[in-house]
Amino acid sequence: MILEAAMLNVVRGREAEFENTFRHASRIIASMPGYLSHELQRCLEVPGRYLLLVRWEQLSDHVEGFRKSPQYAEWRRLLHGFYDPFPSVEHFEAVDLEHAE
Amino acid sequence: MILEAAMLNVVRGREAEFENTFRHASRIIASMPGYLSHELQRCLEVPGRYLLLVRWEQLSDHVEGFRKSPQYAEWRRLLHGFYDPFPSVEHFEAVDLEHAE
Repeated sequence: MILEAAMLNVVRGREAEFENTFRHASRIIASMPGYLSHELQRCLEVPGRYLLLVRWEQLSDHVEGFRKSPQYAEWRRLLHGFYDPFPSVEHFEAVDLEHAE
Repeated sequence: MILEAAMLNVVRGREAEFENTFRHASRIIASMPGYLSHELQRCLEVPGRYLLLVRWEQLSDHVEGFRKSPQYAEWRRLLHGFYDPFPSVEHFEAVDLEHAE
């Protein structure tokens, strides 16, 4: 499992509109092959800041499957205008915390 | 539920030592009142970078309960020497993505 994480900074005053648009756009990402779950987390300390966490079966499900799909064009059309600056996205794999090496 | 998120950058070359130390320190945070779960995620793109996600019942469980505890002093002693720069920590609450407003 791969975790995609992006810190999103939304143009001030457009937070409610962004959240509502994201709610609709959620259907797009949730329909993609390899998608497992996602959450949008609103920062308590910094207005307009969100942490997006998406879990995928494999890295390629996001960077190949989703980003090269027609659905991504629609996702981008809906959401990318809300961000300032444009966010960077990183991918992570869980460190096994149960078994000492 | 509150999500604590911190992007950690570990001194290069000390990643394995950090992960092993974190494995032991995990027992500390997991024993605290209001703690729900945590995960340490290793970045695929940037060596030495980790995303720490901790879920708490309430904000005060982290910023009051944990940070003012003797256990935090031990947590800090074990882990803080690995970070460069010292990380900032933010807190988040989930945006309800199921119910349109």
